[in-house]
Amino acid sequence: MQAVALYPEEPDLRVIEKPKPEPVEDEVLVRTLHIGVDGSDRRIVAGEIGGDCPDGDDHLVIGHEAVGVVEEPNSSRFEPGDVVTALVRRPKDPGSSFAENTELDMAPPGTVHECGITGEHGYMAEYFTAEPKYLVSLPEDRKDYGFFAEPASIVEKALEQAFTARSGFDWRPENAFVLGNGNLGLLALARLSTGQEFDRTYCLGRRDRPDPTIAFIESVGATYVNSRETELREFQNIHNPADFIFETTGHPPHAVEVVSALGPNGIATLQGIPGESAFEIDGGEFHSELVVNNKGLLGVVNSQKSHFQAAGEWLSEAPESLLDELVTGVYAVDEVETALEDSDDEIKTVVSFER
Amino acid sequence: MQAVALYPEEPDLRVIEKPKPEPVEDEVLVRTLHIGVDGSDRRIVAGEIGGDCPDGDDHLVIGHEAVGVVEEPNSSRFEPGDVVTALVRRPKDPGSSFAENTELDMAPPGTVHECGITGEHGYMAEYFTAEPKYLVSLPEDRKDYGFFAEPASIVEKALEQAFTARSGFDWRPENAFVLGNGNLGLLALARLSTGQEFDRTYCLGRRDRPDPTIAFIESVGATYVNSRETELREFQNIHNPADFIFETTGHPPHAVEVVSALGPNGIATLQGIPGESAFEIDGGEFHSELVVNNKGLLGVVNSQKSHFQAAGEWLSEAPESLLDELVTGVYAVDEVETALEDSDDEIKTVVSFER
Repeated sequence: MQAVALYPEEPDLRVIEKPKPEPVEDEVLVRTLHIGVDGSDRRIVAGEIGGDCPDGDDHLVIGHEAVGVVEEPNSSRFEPGDVVTALVRRPKDPGSSFAENTELDMAPPGTVHECGITGEHGYMAEYFTAEPKYLVSLPEDRKDYGFFAEPASIVEKALEQAFTARSGFDWRPENAFVLGNGNLGLLALARLSTGQEFDRTYCLGRRDRPDPTIAFIESVGATYVNSRETELREFQNIHNPADFIFETTGHPPHAVEVVSALGPNGIATLQGIPGESAFEIDGGEFHSELVVNNKGLLGVVNSQKSHFQAAGEWLSEAPESLLDELVTGVYAVDEVETALEDSDDEIKTVVSFER
Repeated sequence: MQAVALYPEEPDLRVIEKPKPEPVEDEVLVRTLHIGVDGSDRRIVAGEIGGDCPDGDDHLVIGHEAVGVVEEPNSSRFEPGDVVTALVRRPKDPGSSFAENTELDMAPPGTVHECGITGEHGYMAEYFTAEPKYLVSLPEDRKDYGFFAEPASIVEKALEQAFTARSGFDWRPENAFVLGNGNLGLLALARLSTGQEFDRTYCLGRRDRPDPTIAFIESVGATYVNSRETELREFQNIHNPADFIFETTGHPPHAVEVVSALGPNGIATLQGIPGESAFEIDGGEFHSELVVNNKGLLGVVNSQKSHFQAAGEWLSEAPESLLDELVTGVYAVDEVETALEDSDDEIKTVVSFER
């Protein structure tokens, strides 16, 4: 079968032929439909993050945003033809408490492999196998968008963490603010704008009109905030204080400045994973603003099955036209390098095995 | 009756005579036993925080850590002789949702007065009145330590916020770390060391042995961490990663560095309220450490009735000898200036109306 693989020390991906995987024990064989591409894939290929080959292999199959159909369910609860997506993490030690609780998203990073990211093959291949507990059913009429389940599950986890953190009192959030208009930012904005949690949504970007991401932001009823015109710390003087902020920029000053943009009792979740970056902050304001207004800052990485399930529910309710607007490029396997290009004209690109 | 009052523009407190308060409607009249003194009182007197007089008054009675006995219960649930402590905040608008939910600790700071801190008289007077909903019963055998209920309620709120924030998964905290060996830090350490939540406790200070606070830290079975020898960011290389950090230093670099001292999934609560302070940080490490390890940072201010009740329960279970060790000075009303002095030999000082 065809697969897209990264070889250590090689700058480009290779489309390789490798044997179709044989499911062992109760593993499920899945025929891949589409694989979403995101910034992590670009960073893996660029050698910035992850990229470790599985033990005994000389390459890493990339791809961690999968949708496929069950080909061989074996003894699992699945039926042939079921549309499924797959979790990303696998435990190094299957006996760890995080593995037993199926809370691998909360496991320390060194204790897990991440399929398609580091230490375990990903899903950008014609077929993949997985234990049933790492697969989540998706609605059949969303099979063309099922690759959104993985990034949308991060948004669900962030929402769950924020609402859980505020569950000790009568929290009444109104305004949600997404930092970043990349593909995760816009997907998060779509989720937050179509959900019931918030009255108003905002999205921060650094582009000028006309721009396809600004058009998308406004099409979901959100307000575009141009970071070149409105500094994050000025946000609540110009718009409304944010009750929930979802960060996707990976821009370290944002991890500090979000506190100024939050209103009382607000929660910001951080999802970006930047490299080193030193800069000066007004630490007194950061510290006291967190305290006197009961604000919170939560780091969020990866997600677990319940978040994928919530993401699947949202996908099934989201208008198809909305999802369609986000997908700006569908590429065949041998066009993977094009799918990975970072262009202002693209929102979400996908590698399709149906082509 | 005697009261300790701050007059605007005057550097020193005055012990004044003022009329014994008349309870109105269902208010309760309380005879004051003791009032705890803390760093906020010093900052109020120094003109750094709060200090606003109640409307129509030319002075502010200070004191917000109260214990007293009910003298006139009026139509309330209290009985004469009941030992009580009092909440600190009062709503400017009694019809606000925070007031109706009795969650004034989550109200924006501008919407509340704080008794003895700003806008409303405090409790450092022979008598005070309060609506029953702002009073909390304490065990009678802890009446000499009831002033600890207010600061201990902050610790209870921080614990509740941390455990609530982590309640979405199977959190197994082991190590708690208190930053600061002032009176709030040592009280928090006593609470965390005698409670069931953690296996090991640590306390950060900047003093050398011999020192009474180090002796106290070790008497509760905690490990003293000298910040001149161990930087916060080195903490987990030398000791264990902290699962919970309770900050009391008000030192803004700590608001950032706590993230390095936390282990995976750890939560730090910040309680200090510093002034301006600019400095350089490694923002990339701060940002990515929060994310890849699912860490969190929560600001915590004030507390509500349930936290006072939890504090009362802890006080009733804590060994009297432990509480006694924390109280290093009990002063009469006319010695209030001495009670407010900031000395390395004192842990907690108290102004007593029983003298």
